[in-house]
Amino acid sequence: MSDPQLFRIGLLGHGTVGGAFATLLEERADEIAAVTGLRPDLVGVLTRSRGEFADILERSDLIVEVMGGLEPAREHVLAAMAAGRHVVTANKQLLSQHGEELWSCARENRVQLRFEAAVAGVVPVIRVLQETLAAAHVDRLHGIVNGTTNFILTRMAETGASYDDALAEAQRLGYAEADPTEDVNGKDAAAKMAILARLAFNTPVHLDDVRYEGIEHITGEDMEYARELGLGLKLIGTAERIDGGVSVRVHPAFLYGDHPLASVSGPFNAVTIESQAITEITLSGPGAGGPQTASAVLGDVISAMIPPASTPPTTATLEIVTDVASAFYLYLEVADRPGVLAQVAQLLGLQGASIRSVVQKGLGENARLVMVTHPILESRFYAALELIAGLDFIRARPRAIRVIDEEFV
Amino acid sequence: MSDPQLFRIGLLGHGTVGGAFATLLEERADEIAAVTGLRPDLVGVLTRSRGEFADILERSDLIVEVMGGLEPAREHVLAAMAAGRHVVTANKQLLSQHGEELWSCARENRVQLRFEAAVAGVVPVIRVLQETLAAAHVDRLHGIVNGTTNFILTRMAETGASYDDALAEAQRLGYAEADPTEDVNGKDAAAKMAILARLAFNTPVHLDDVRYEGIEHITGEDMEYARELGLGLKLIGTAERIDGGVSVRVHPAFLYGDHPLASVSGPFNAVTIESQAITEITLSGPGAGGPQTASAVLGDVISAMIPPASTPPTTATLEIVTDVASAFYLYLEVADRPGVLAQVAQLLGLQGASIRSVVQKGLGENARLVMVTHPILESRFYAALELIAGLDFIRARPRAIRVIDEEFV
Repeated sequence: MSDPQLFRIGLLGHGTVGGAFATLLEERADEIAAVTGLRPDLVGVLTRSRGEFADILERSDLIVEVMGGLEPAREHVLAAMAAGRHVVTANKQLLSQHGEELWSCARENRVQLRFEAAVAGVVPVIRVLQETLAAAHVDRLHGIVNGTTNFILTRMAETGASYDDALAEAQRLGYAEADPTEDVNGKDAAAKMAILARLAFNTPVHLDDVRYEGIEHITGEDMEYARELGLGLKLIGTAERIDGGVSVRVHPAFLYGDHPLASVSGPFNAVTIESQAITEITLSGPGAGGPQTASAVLGDVISAMIPPASTPPTTATLEIVTDVASAFYLYLEVADRPGVLAQVAQLLGLQGASIRSVVQKGLGENARLVMVTHPILESRFYAALELIAGLDFIRARPRAIRVIDEEFV
Repeated sequence: MSDPQLFRIGLLGHGTVGGAFATLLEERADEIAAVTGLRPDLVGVLTRSRGEFADILERSDLIVEVMGGLEPAREHVLAAMAAGRHVVTANKQLLSQHGEELWSCARENRVQLRFEAAVAGVVPVIRVLQETLAAAHVDRLHGIVNGTTNFILTRMAETGASYDDALAEAQRLGYAEADPTEDVNGKDAAAKMAILARLAFNTPVHLDDVRYEGIEHITGEDMEYARELGLGLKLIGTAERIDGGVSVRVHPAFLYGDHPLASVSGPFNAVTIESQAITEITLSGPGAGGPQTASAVLGDVISAMIPPASTPPTTATLEIVTDVASAFYLYLEVADRPGVLAQVAQLLGLQGASIRSVVQKGLGENARLVMVTHPILESRFYAALELIAGLDFIRARPRAIRVIDEEFV
């Protein structure tokens, strides 16, 4: 097989996201070539101090814009599309203020303008609105679309920290910038909601159409009372149809515990989309961070490289593994004699399984011994189970059910 | 403007999903024409008793296959793609057993083969794996991909019902078929996990590679002990990389309460996708049902009609509504005198706001009165708030925060 053809990428901006994108592109180059049949090639990087836009454009098939801000980002994106290049951007300010101009330029030049990373990072809400739900008549969206404020509110709720302390912690951990103004005052979320509302309702929505309030005035006391009232506090973006019009707004809001956004914590983002035909779907995941945002940008780049809806040939033939590790729930009906638990524990222990928790109920000849083990290879657990089933105090066939016990973010 | 060009759709199958699709297509025809510039036209329907495949194919630009089963679905889908037609299918059996043949046929003929509806209904997991995460090196997927079993397990957990009673209820409500065998024994979920694993890992995965167990042997007692141990039971599909191979399996499994799938209840589906670059994203929504599955099919059809990543022109200019209804949390520092709550309630009541819950703390000159109202127009609430702020027993500027209080499925 001959070497795959090159797909030439020009990168505008080399900050946190740009740097992470360049790294990820290099790491994934082989996998991308296998999946797309094209080898991605970073032909140039534009920063304040190096690179020449016209030169990078000339040598690129696609432009990635992660410089941020309105100008010269707008000018470069328009020039790239006019020159017939696809563009991938993460620039929410640009799209919420000049979206119609940019989308119309993309349509006129028949190029792709992709921007998944502009809203909720790698959470695929843009793609879902543009494609899955393109004609679904969306009624309402709710979103947690700013990771900084969600982190701050989560910490205030979990630790009782004040707003100032939680903000300082967010800055220390890199979840808030040195100047967090546009995150905490709601403007960042407002730009994202303007973009989502435009896509959901196919009506012009500009950043200026979005009312927003921030979280600067939330106190620890509000959090405490809210808990007593069964509420949790989030910075919520809402876009909804009302009486033939639309309302788009961002403000702190309390949610009852059963709301799908109530459990979204830390720097995570999530969006709930409601429509009569689909009832409701929820998408959640990391909303920010260099590598995560860069992943969203890369997903857009790869989408521009492959024909739509093509399932690539398999690129590997991996072994199908059949014996895997799992924790187990084990339900035993036993005669309650001295040493019963010890004998069961010993048989499990010989196979390498230890007990994480145990509940015992009932007495005499009719007791129940129920336990959860730590993870163990299934083959070894079932070997122990066979031996346990043969113990003389076992009154019925033991029942075992797997327990999924993994670390989550 | 001249009439939009027609986009001709041939429909194979007219059961629950096919019927709902035909209805939805007609309802959404204007919106689709506005968004895509093409007017969808259902040119023919093939059922056991009517229609001729060759004739429908001849007159179609795209074929929708919702007949189910292996043959003649396979034969028709291959013939359609060989004739250069895009295909949208909801057929999980077909893809989990003949996927490689079909995907390779689509690549050879440079047509789109879309199948979002085959797994988790309108939850966009296929699109996300194929596009957003095309080269993301997915490490692991967990999915609740069968709505029937999730409904049964949810009812068992919530009401203490036995498996048989919960199954009967699911059948009565239309969440389980008359013959529920392939749902409850895990085979339906296994077919879906085979498809997801193929896309996530780019390695061949056939239905026969998936081990599966069902929920037929789960008892109410298991549910009770699980609750004591802090666990909830789901039918979980797992696909993961293990030591350079992959394991794909479906079995009942307990989850700890903080797992992102633990809160997925009733007939909903959800999938969690983990990869180092993105940490983890979760997608959830209705997994089955005629209209929902038909929506997923329609999303695929529209995707085939529009150029990739195009944001259509706005199709309406909706009024931006600025005064909306909301419930409010109201925090008041008050001098605790007789009649304080009554006066506040009266001022709210004059604007049409009633109180849903209230907490009072502290005594004398230093009390706190915290309440949540029922929804009211913001303008009216703030009018009341101005008056409340002027009452002589109010000790500090009142604080108000919105409460999102909506019905969810």
